[in-house]
Amino acid sequence: KSWLGVPENSPFPIQNLPYGVFRPTPQAQPRIGVAIGQHVVDLQSLVKQGMFSSAKILDPSVLAEKTLNSFMATGRPAWQEARAILISLLVSTNSNEAQKKIVTAALVPMAKCKMELPARIGDYTDFFSSKNHATNLGCLFRHNDPAKALLPNYLHLPVGYHGRASSIVVSGTDIRRPWGQKTPQQEGAAPQFEPCSNLDFELEVAFFVGPGSQMGKPLTMANAADHIFGLVLMNDWSARDIQKWEYVPLGPFTAKNFGTTISPWVVTMEALAPFRKPVLEAFDPDPQAYLQTKDGKHFSYDVKLEVQLRPKEEKKAFVISKGNVNGLYWTFEQQLVHHTITGCNMCPGDLCGSGTISGTQPEARGSMIEISWAGQKPLSLPNGSTRKFLEDGDEVNLLGYAQGDGYMIGFGDCCGRILPALSRNDLMGHSSL
Amino acid sequence: KSWLGVPENSPFPIQNLPYGVFRPTPQAQPRIGVAIGQHVVDLQSLVKQGMFSSAKILDPSVLAEKTLNSFMATGRPAWQEARAILISLLVSTNSNEAQKKIVTAALVPMAKCKMELPARIGDYTDFFSSKNHATNLGCLFRHNDPAKALLPNYLHLPVGYHGRASSIVVSGTDIRRPWGQKTPQQEGAAPQFEPCSNLDFELEVAFFVGPGSQMGKPLTMANAADHIFGLVLMNDWSARDIQKWEYVPLGPFTAKNFGTTISPWVVTMEALAPFRKPVLEAFDPDPQAYLQTKDGKHFSYDVKLEVQLRPKEEKKAFVISKGNVNGLYWTFEQQLVHHTITGCNMCPGDLCGSGTISGTQPEARGSMIEISWAGQKPLSLPNGSTRKFLEDGDEVNLLGYAQGDGYMIGFGDCCGRILPALSRNDLMGHSSL
Ligand SMILES: [Ca+2]
Ligand SMILES: [Ca+2]
Ligand SMILES: [Mg+2]
Ligand SMILES: [Mg+2]
Ligand code: NI
Repeated sequence: KSWLGVPENSPFPIQNLPYGVFRPTPQAQPRIGVAIGQHVVDLQSLVKQGMFSSAKILDPSVLAEKTLNSFMATGRPAWQEARAILISLLVSTNSNEAQKKIVTAALVPMAKCKMELPARIGDYTDFFSSKNHATNLGCLFRHNDPAKALLPNYLHLPVGYHGRASSIVVSGTDIRRPWGQKTPQQEGAAPQFEPCSNLDFELEVAFFVGPGSQMGKPLTMANAADHIFGLVLMNDWSARDIQKWEYVPLGPFTAKNFGTTISPWVVTMEALAPFRKPVLEAFDPDPQAYLQTKDGKHFSYDVKLEVQLRPKEEKKAFVISKGNVNGLYWTFEQQLVHHTITGCNMCPGDLCGSGTISGTQPEARGSMIEISWAGQKPLSLPNGSTRKFLEDGDEVNLLGYAQGDGYMIGFGDCCGRILPALSRNDLMGHSSL
Repeated sequence: KSWLGVPENSPFPIQNLPYGVFRPTPQAQPRIGVAIGQHVVDLQSLVKQGMFSSAKILDPSVLAEKTLNSFMATGRPAWQEARAILISLLVSTNSNEAQKKIVTAALVPMAKCKMELPARIGDYTDFFSSKNHATNLGCLFRHNDPAKALLPNYLHLPVGYHGRASSIVVSGTDIRRPWGQKTPQQEGAAPQFEPCSNLDFELEVAFFVGPGSQMGKPLTMANAADHIFGLVLMNDWSARDIQKWEYVPLGPFTAKNFGTTISPWVVTMEALAPFRKPVLEAFDPDPQAYLQTKDGKHFSYDVKLEVQLRPKEEKKAFVISKGNVNGLYWTFEQQLVHHTITGCNMCPGDLCGSGTISGTQPEARGSMIEISWAGQKPLSLPNGSTRKFLEDGDEVNLLGYAQGDGYMIGFGDCCGRILPALSRNDLMGHSSL
């Protein structure tokens, strides 16, 4: 228990201590903070007051920077040391009055903070690691038979693609409905150029890369976990009609690069350790040797997920999907090792998305295209409206939490609202934007 | 003509003045330079000596930074001003003795310089804009009939994919032959996990993005050219056997992210202006309105390209392909506008590759898979050896130049050498790397 008052059911109890980058006022320089209850602890301030001077491995100056990249680069022993120091400062029995004073002076009410991206994301990759999702999309995009929906490589490697790092935004950023080309209505006709009408969300989590690797020196299953700093929620907004037309043969491009939202608080793997659970589904066939662990055991995390949709006219959001990270087929370690297997270098602050997380049940589908089965079965909302895909003004929020004994490890919001598409004139630059 | 001695046939005459980032000694901090003849002009030194103080639009301090990103961000009027000042300093008739002394003091012999990447590349995208290449690959990967080889979207939009920015390296960096999974020999069998045996190069050019765009505000054909800073040569090393297995449905991933080589000198669009030429092939069908210019005219660049292969045992390289940038179907402006059409933000220093440049003739094929027709027609080298794909020790160098009247605008080297694959033990981390 912390001497700081933490409300019951707070996503940010003393057991969590997620890292983020915030501005205490909109004009202030960004700095690193730790969330606890309804406050953010300004780490720059703690560093200046010598609160980390007992550290032996950690260079405290990395916590006084404007992004988490350098801290992510320091590696697990330094992460553990920082966490131990924070816990000792915040737990009632450990901290002395002088320290409490310093910590109290470093507190900023969370409601006042403007959150930023936690790191400079040099590269962003999105995997496709939910077998249920891959099966659903295979049915919808290619083959309406679940037994044939997976492509031949799916069970042999964690399929993934390079995404657009610049378009990753922090929770709360509005998303403009995109224009784009769509499949012609008849073969050989011109494609339609219109605002996206199949705008979708994707319920994902993503991990931030820690120290990373050198080019030409792949990570291994034995050391991969040491390169995973922590998790955020991620909404990979997707323009399905645009995606369908453009994605052959080189994969999704403009259908995915208009915005990807992440939650601002990075929940560390240390905080999630109590929720590490064996993967739900056994690998079949066996993974290749480089994706295999010594003891054949593979772990995921029991993190419950929720998608909330709030239509423009509503004050309250409706829960439209409930999932769990634990349902992923490929583990984070396998994703990371496979990413580097040909020699790709990974850098501190790189972000790797899990792919849309869908469960086996219809209630656990992680995207509108799955929920409405490509519009064939519109979703009925409690307010009487229906959805095939997202409408203008809709706000989507992702929630995630691991339920501990008397506490929960929460992720905070990962939300975004759909703005209407630009007019054709604005789009084509005929009026001033 | 410059008062500095520039050897005849130098790729870097006074008409060129490409920008790069170099270290005068291996230990020195990187700085921005301009290539002229056999020298690099240290711009940090010129800025310190006030040589850019007459600039009205340009903030000279951007030329004293460690990368070109800030200079790229300043936009065309500032680029033109910087070029005009450099020309006035370097042209015999213009510069006075005091200036000559300062410039002379800022010269570093090119042979002594260690070149770095010209910019922090936040995001890297690779297009697929050579119709000849797309047709050849369609034949080889899918459909052995050129008339059916192009996928339905190809003639409607510049197909592209997000690449891996971290694995872009500067000319001269060795490339390790990657390991990876390959298509099983029989359907249903396990994929093979081996060193790549179909290792390839891809002859490309790439442009660096200038000021760029905000999320949600697409660039237009009217303003796109102002966001293109300059060109480099690019070799997008590719593991064809790995690519073939992994690329469905989300595109190339580990088959491309083990290394992409660029030439260090960024040749500006100002230097290339005299070589701007109408595209070779008329668009058919007409491009969509957002990819159309006001007057219906579209331009490429008459830049001759060459691929040189030097086997390990040879001192001299053999020319194995001759192409031209002018053969691209989609223009750089169309690539850039399409990239942003759904709202993707572009940042200064982003890199966009053209895709492999192949001509209509067999001599102008820009990759080994095309030259050897996937190994069916091995290439005979003048020394009696043959190549289906690249072998260990092979060095590939790309050359590019625009031929002016009595001068040429060259790009310098874009080379890399193939190192043998790691042993299985090293790969799996069983011995210390
Ligand atoms: Ca996704
Ligand atoms: Ca390429
Ligand atoms: Mg996205
Ligand atoms: Mg590459
Ligand atoms: Ni990037």
